[in-house]
Amino acid sequence: MKAAMEQVKMPQDAGCLFCKIIRREVKADIVFEDDVCLAFLDHRPLLLGHCLLVTKQHVETLIDLPDAMIAPFFRATQKLAGAVEAAMAAEGTFVAINNRVSQSVPHLHVHIVPRKRGDGLKGFFWPRTKYQSEEQMADVAEKIRNKLGKLER
Amino acid sequence: MKAAMEQVKMPQDAGCLFCKIIRREVKADIVFEDDVCLAFLDHRPLLLGHCLLVTKQHVETLIDLPDAMIAPFFRATQKLAGAVEAAMAAEGTFVAINNRVSQSVPHLHVHIVPRKRGDGLKGFFWPRTKYQSEEQMADVAEKIRNKLGKLER
Repeated sequence: MKAAMEQVKMPQDAGCLFCKIIRREVKADIVFEDDVCLAFLDHRPLLLGHCLLVTKQHVETLIDLPDAMIAPFFRATQKLAGAVEAAMAAEGTFVAINNRVSQSVPHLHVHIVPRKRGDGLKGFFWPRTKYQSEEQMADVAEKIRNKLGKLER
Repeated sequence: MKAAMEQVKMPQDAGCLFCKIIRREVKADIVFEDDVCLAFLDHRPLLLGHCLLVTKQHVETLIDLPDAMIAPFFRATQKLAGAVEAAMAAEGTFVAINNRVSQSVPHLHVHIVPRKRGDGLKGFFWPRTKYQSEEQMADVAEKIRNKLGKLER
């Protein structure tokens, strides 16, 4: 909790629920804090022990995360996944980010959920679809490669 | 594709499907490659354009990812999320890692799925549960903090 005062220097959003938690204006069960991020229990967990890790700076989605924060943010994700799994005597974890669609609060957050075999969450994945042909699949791959090429320029 | 030969130096698993894709022993529609990771289309996509980003080194789960790979791996995740969203004219992305439970191939992979509002995947989230009391919630938070403390030692 050493870095509790750091965040006031960071750009924040006055009305954002997660920024309010960071500023201690809204109560949360905080489990981790460092200079870059904060983690707390989701109050409507998928399973008990479900945590949300957020950036202290108000960043909306993964794409908006500044490069310098990538390593500390995901190092914290890794550490928290280990701790959540151990604390809940789980067998694995589900680590996920919804960017814009299905994102309830527009402030970057990683869901870290402890998993056990037979925890009833098997049906979590949507039904899989399929490509109509190898050509369609190759075409989609080419579109993505093209966009990556443009991003690199 | 400049780094196509790099991976032969990396520890791999002979029988692992993703290692075979990395070694070009199994065909895949590869969309991205650098020294640390490789991305290709999931052949049973949740939605068209669904990619899997894997480490070239055979690493089982997020917790096993060596510290030096965290920044390059998640920088690639961020870049790929941007490219997949743009290529598929999507409105957002779902970025997720299953660690052990629900992990079909025991080789670390990030799912990057383009999302659109009304794409029919609303039901993706499991029903939420709840804590029985504030005390139970505080107790769970304390357990996680304790494990984090031990990890930091």
